[in-house]
Amino acid sequence: MKHSIPVELKTSYRLLNHGPTIMVSSAHHGRRNLMSAAWSMPLDFQPPKIAVVIDKTTLTRELVEGSGEFVINLPTVAQAGLAVAVGHGSGRDQDKFERYGIETLPASIVGAPMIAGCAAWLECKVIAEPHLQSTYDLFIAEVVAAWSDPDCYSNGRWLNTQPEQRTVHYIAGGAFFATGERIDVDLPADA
Amino acid sequence: MKHSIPVELKTSYRLLNHGPTIMVSSAHHGRRNLMSAAWSMPLDFQPPKIAVVIDKTTLTRELVEGSGEFVINLPTVAQAGLAVAVGHGSGRDQDKFERYGIETLPASIVGAPMIAGCAAWLECKVIAEPHLQSTYDLFIAEVVAAWSDPDCYSNGRWLNTQPEQRTVHYIAGGAFFATGERIDVDLPADA
Repeated sequence: MKHSIPVELKTSYRLLNHGPTIMVSSAHHGRRNLMSAAWSMPLDFQPPKIAVVIDKTTLTRELVEGSGEFVINLPTVAQAGLAVAVGHGSGRDQDKFERYGIETLPASIVGAPMIAGCAAWLECKVIAEPHLQSTYDLFIAEVVAAWSDPDCYSNGRWLNTQPEQRTVHYIAGGAFFATGERIDVDLPADA
Repeated sequence: MKHSIPVELKTSYRLLNHGPTIMVSSAHHGRRNLMSAAWSMPLDFQPPKIAVVIDKTTLTRELVEGSGEFVINLPTVAQAGLAVAVGHGSGRDQDKFERYGIETLPASIVGAPMIAGCAAWLECKVIAEPHLQSTYDLFIAEVVAAWSDPDCYSNGRWLNTQPEQRTVHYIAGGAFFATGERIDVDLPADA
């Protein structure tokens, strides 16, 4: 299994800034789960915070509310099939890790596992906002540790050089866009 | 100027689902502004809602809080330079529309203008959440109308065929990823 390298917290927003689809892993009281989520975004730089929508019908919701923790995993092009698979069906009916033969790595701070083969990982602790959670299924969390596959992201930069290692962006109905080529624009002189 | 076509509200989440960078246009009491934002996401399907971060130091924040309305504009690869330009400097110091020669189209419901040449547009009305707005700079809004350039998106699908018309995904420091190629995964049989 490939190793992961730490990402400094102050630039960890760059892991989500380009809008990739994620998988949320969670664990509580001996149970664990993994679900895909297209609806997440950075919310603040320092300390880094993120926002993510977790539907109230899901097992993930129960485990995240129980533990107050989760991991955001960034699947690659090679994992697009996995991201669709774990986006359907409930972890209440099956252990998705066993069903899909998913390998995990231990996280450094939270109890939820990190999914092997991903491009990057954000360990998150929920900031309790009961009104938001119940009204909008919206969770706010602080990023307490971040990691990347050094072939995907290192020294604060996405490398995006290996086609199968690029991140993915879900549309609907099993269709994604892969992350495309880099475009560089000169910053304004007064920036 | 090219025409825009209506996008049905129930599938309008697909305009933001893949995580593109947006530009927020706003208007109130004769003033108007345009700023870029990488931090937005869909929040609900029906009625469609979105979440977006609007910093409290910005003129956009003042106009959005004053009017309760804004438009989310999706810039294309051809507009990446514009997206960076309007992401720097304040509309308090200059009218960005004049400075950058930005053409606009009238929106159908809200007073904020739609930016010509974009891939798609979402007309939004703020759902007041004062705690969220003040604590996290986070705005929740209902999408009340949606439009697309038919060369970019039509019949509920992104076309993504013209390289310059693709959406963009901001990283940091003037760098974007363009939206890449489509990947189709078979949905599980029980989906």
